[in-house]
Amino acid sequence: MNIQAIDQYIESNLDASVAELSRLCAQPSVAAQNLGIEDCAELVAQALKPRGFSVSIMPTGGSPVVFAERKGGADATLISYNHYDVQPAEPLELWESPPFEPTVRHGRLYARGVADNKGNFIARLHAIDAILNQADELPCNIKFVVEGEEEIGSVNLEPFVKAHQELLAGDVCVWEIGGVNHENSPIQMLGMRGICYVELRVRTANGDVHSGTGGSIFPNAAWRLVWALNSLKGQDEHIRLPGFYNAVIPPTPREKELLVQLPDMRAHYREVYGLDGFLKGIDDPLELAIQAVYQPTCTICGLTSGYQGEGSKTVLPAEASAKVDFRLVPDQRPQQVLTQLREHLDAHGFSDVEIVFLGGNPGAKTDPDHPAVGIAVRAAEDVYDKPTEINPMIGGSGPNFIFQEYLGVPIISNGANDADSRAHAPNESISLDLYAKAAKHFARMMLLMRDY
Amino acid sequence: MNIQAIDQYIESNLDASVAELSRLCAQPSVAAQNLGIEDCAELVAQALKPRGFSVSIMPTGGSPVVFAERKGGADATLISYNHYDVQPAEPLELWESPPFEPTVRHGRLYARGVADNKGNFIARLHAIDAILNQADELPCNIKFVVEGEEEIGSVNLEPFVKAHQELLAGDVCVWEIGGVNHENSPIQMLGMRGICYVELRVRTANGDVHSGTGGSIFPNAAWRLVWALNSLKGQDEHIRLPGFYNAVIPPTPREKELLVQLPDMRAHYREVYGLDGFLKGIDDPLELAIQAVYQPTCTICGLTSGYQGEGSKTVLPAEASAKVDFRLVPDQRPQQVLTQLREHLDAHGFSDVEIVFLGGNPGAKTDPDHPAVGIAVRAAEDVYDKPTEINPMIGGSGPNFIFQEYLGVPIISNGANDADSRAHAPNESISLDLYAKAAKHFARMMLLMRDY
Repeated sequence: MNIQAIDQYIESNLDASVAELSRLCAQPSVAAQNLGIEDCAELVAQALKPRGFSVSIMPTGGSPVVFAERKGGADATLISYNHYDVQPAEPLELWESPPFEPTVRHGRLYARGVADNKGNFIARLHAIDAILNQADELPCNIKFVVEGEEEIGSVNLEPFVKAHQELLAGDVCVWEIGGVNHENSPIQMLGMRGICYVELRVRTANGDVHSGTGGSIFPNAAWRLVWALNSLKGQDEHIRLPGFYNAVIPPTPREKELLVQLPDMRAHYREVYGLDGFLKGIDDPLELAIQAVYQPTCTICGLTSGYQGEGSKTVLPAEASAKVDFRLVPDQRPQQVLTQLREHLDAHGFSDVEIVFLGGNPGAKTDPDHPAVGIAVRAAEDVYDKPTEINPMIGGSGPNFIFQEYLGVPIISNGANDADSRAHAPNESISLDLYAKAAKHFARMMLLMRDY
Repeated sequence: MNIQAIDQYIESNLDASVAELSRLCAQPSVAAQNLGIEDCAELVAQALKPRGFSVSIMPTGGSPVVFAERKGGADATLISYNHYDVQPAEPLELWESPPFEPTVRHGRLYARGVADNKGNFIARLHAIDAILNQADELPCNIKFVVEGEEEIGSVNLEPFVKAHQELLAGDVCVWEIGGVNHENSPIQMLGMRGICYVELRVRTANGDVHSGTGGSIFPNAAWRLVWALNSLKGQDEHIRLPGFYNAVIPPTPREKELLVQLPDMRAHYREVYGLDGFLKGIDDPLELAIQAVYQPTCTICGLTSGYQGEGSKTVLPAEASAKVDFRLVPDQRPQQVLTQLREHLDAHGFSDVEIVFLGGNPGAKTDPDHPAVGIAVRAAEDVYDKPTEINPMIGGSGPNFIFQEYLGVPIISNGANDADSRAHAPNESISLDLYAKAAKHFARMMLLMRDY
């Protein structure tokens, strides 16, 4: 197959593909608000069918999964994991053009979900069109798993994948997201931390009390919460749950080798976030990179109690709560953390602190020397100006564990995301140049899968 | 003077007095919102002038103080401390009748400020009318000090009183508030704790960060705040500021004798607030009463940081703050506590925690055996059905210190407040029966001042 002809097709038909992407982005599909989910799943199915895919809209108990399959000219199967749901668009007033009216400005397409994840999905279809323009069949089998709950924690994905292991089986999974970093180097993100997100709640009375009456004799929910939180992690940053670090393993020598090659993030973080320095006084780029992703965390994401307005109110709060996320390294498990957390709180006299589990999944990673990673890297070689940077692990989380656990597949990255994409924020966008590059990259991945 | 005739006048002219009170309550005067303050000060002045008082509306830098004086037939001077400002009426939807449309229901007058403190002010004027109906002159000199910032911490009162010590001088001060307890026994509240109210603020970055990126390497404002708070007070309830307890003295034997005679509050607190028990396992009524008011406190009144909505958001907060009030026993001083707090935070590695002082004043108490207390008690004897309970100290705070420090006066109580008054809350009200009793009580106080 002629790669120049494929690239030519991708360039020449870019406007039509962007128009298709714009139609998909014009369909709101906010899982958190149950807005337009069924309609968007239908649009996804309608996009896949004309490309010769057999398509099923499959129930999950929540948003349906669109599953699509097309046989190719080789035995190998490439699974594309995507999601059609998007983050809420609020706050609307911060958008320069309405979130569900896709608009091109200065070479970028703006819309809610265009970067996360509709653009990457349609770019892959554009790559498929380019190949089918040159050949009657695809170079390998392709399966699409397009879910509708990624933005609310993929709450129904694990039982779905577990129940359909044969149907979904494949050799390599291309993750929903990918692209370039803040230095415009293409990246392969090979691992994600897990997460266990909880709300801790304390209630000490059936209503707030005047602080003059109760201050020295009534229990105070805010104090109970502060003490319970303080028992979880001290200023040394050590998380005190029993056995919490038992599963933590350091990066392999190979992973360290890759981490050394990643950009030094210190100046970037200092500038973007206005930081004086980093926790534990770390100031070595490698040490910082290891600390950032090879250690589990216990992060207070929010605190609420009592009076929070202007000035003073002399109230003794009856209720207090904290949002807390634990980022987990492979092979920590959220259920295990919940058990450790309950044990810890009980052992430290905080059996009154309620734990509400708000979601989670384990972390997982792909071996950087897996042949699938070689495919992703080689496919990028003549598409991007710079060589691919391999990031063995990122700090964030996603449902990659589910695919690795139940389908046993390595996971590689492809996409049009860059440092300006503002996923989850107002004015989300993708570069049209990177969109074409993502399609070219995916086309090359498919071609390389012939010999996988 | 004929006390029966005075009581008769108070009863017969009750409707007219309640009408006058209603007009004053119809005038909003919310200091926190700077709403109607000047107009209300003018109404207060207009109420005093026809009663033969020389009246000045005096600037303070904030809300003006209405000062009024009328000479009487004896040398002794009774000072009435009142305030014309009221708490914000919000949340409006919880009011059964609008807060600034005074309404009588089932023998109670409902309006914002009727209990705290307009009712007690007009009741005293009603008592003056009753006496002037019988005599040409008042039995003693009367001075009114009616401020307009009590509900925002009397922020300008101290320099005002200090600057006008001669003008305001007197022998006994009747406090703005008084009445009966939850068992309908008249009470004399002879002391108040002081207060030092601060907001603690931490800022660790110039914006929130994704918790996956920063959880293990970026400082977290919420954690900094939790650790700083935890350093202030542990689960043993001991406040760890250096020297914090140096000024604390136990109740005198006489105060203990009075505390023993007060109602056992344990069952009441358990029921009203749904408590299982009290701090430090205290379950002895006297020990509880001592702990409640003879110890200083450190109360978290509010906590704010990061995400506080439904469900989960994986954010690492750049800012966190807490409202904290310290209730102080005589002779602790707010400025001293601020110094101790700064020293403590710095010494424990929390120099990044900003202290914003939101107001305060020292505590003060009147000797229960002071002759002025005898006047208050004797004045109540034939007004109320039960004997007066003398409470040497309450847990709450107020500017009593200012009067005791600069005017050297004992402070006694008089008013129409009861356990259903709901001061500061929606549906604030007073009983019209207790209103008449408050007027009768104040009339007797004036008469007894002849021989002071």
